[in-house]
Amino acid sequence: MEQRVSVVTLGVGDKEKSRAFYEGMGWKGVGGDGDDPVFFQAGGLVIGLWDRAALAEDSCMEDNGGWGGITLAHNVASPEAVDAAVEVARAAGGTVARDPAKTFWGGYNAVVLDPDGHPWEICHNPHWTLTPDGETRLGT
Amino acid sequence: MEQRVSVVTLGVGDKEKSRAFYEGMGWKGVGGDGDDPVFFQAGGLVIGLWDRAALAEDSCMEDNGGWGGITLAHNVASPEAVDAAVEVARAAGGTVARDPAKTFWGGYNAVVLDPDGHPWEICHNPHWTLTPDGETRLGT
Repeated sequence: MEQRVSVVTLGVGDKEKSRAFYEGMGWKGVGGDGDDPVFFQAGGLVIGLWDRAALAEDSCMEDNGGWGGITLAHNVASPEAVDAAVEVARAAGGTVARDPAKTFWGGYNAVVLDPDGHPWEICHNPHWTLTPDGETRLGT
Repeated sequence: MEQRVSVVTLGVGDKEKSRAFYEGMGWKGVGGDGDDPVFFQAGGLVIGLWDRAALAEDSCMEDNGGWGGITLAHNVASPEAVDAAVEVARAAGGTVARDPAKTFWGGYNAVVLDPDGHPWEICHNPHWTLTPDGETRLGT
């Protein structure tokens, strides 16, 4: 089995509200008619927004609400870019759960929640490589 | 804010057990000493395994256990490749929550749970493109 992930699907309560948040950050979704998911091409994978109850059923999961042990990160090229991205997310309707600050491991990050409370770490990691294409590579 | 995800971190109860599952599928993790996360280079992003309580705290989340509305998918090139990947995951210690079968939207998929119950959809999607590099592109 190859070492990769193809799709990250986020269960949402209000697809249009969630789509508006991500598009408010400059993303462009496709699809989403009726009960269909909204998809965002994100580099070599796809991020989807789909009704949370439908996703739970499709994933054979019981949904007790809340967080389930998965956190996404969006890495950027500098501490200043973290600050800027957090303000973009806040303006789009995100909730800043933790303000940007230096981390104990030498990085700089913040935590922003999307409209459904899914946490995104906005991060500058000087120990990793961010390519011009936006890919994240382990090591410098 | 660019349209991408840089890191997907999975909260785990037993890092070595979880690492053994993913490495049992042929993946190769780096790091993981002491309390450090294990990281897997997965195309243009990184998949991490980290103590679930540490991840919850770092993500400003309360953890009630269970699923939190995020499902990952691993797409492959054919229905037969779904069957094969499911057997690889089962042999590595995964739980097959839903056996491979045709979907209503014309695909073929299964759901496999990792040792912490994180669901992975193993999927063939004939409406999307899987590149030779393992990237998933919307459309054919």
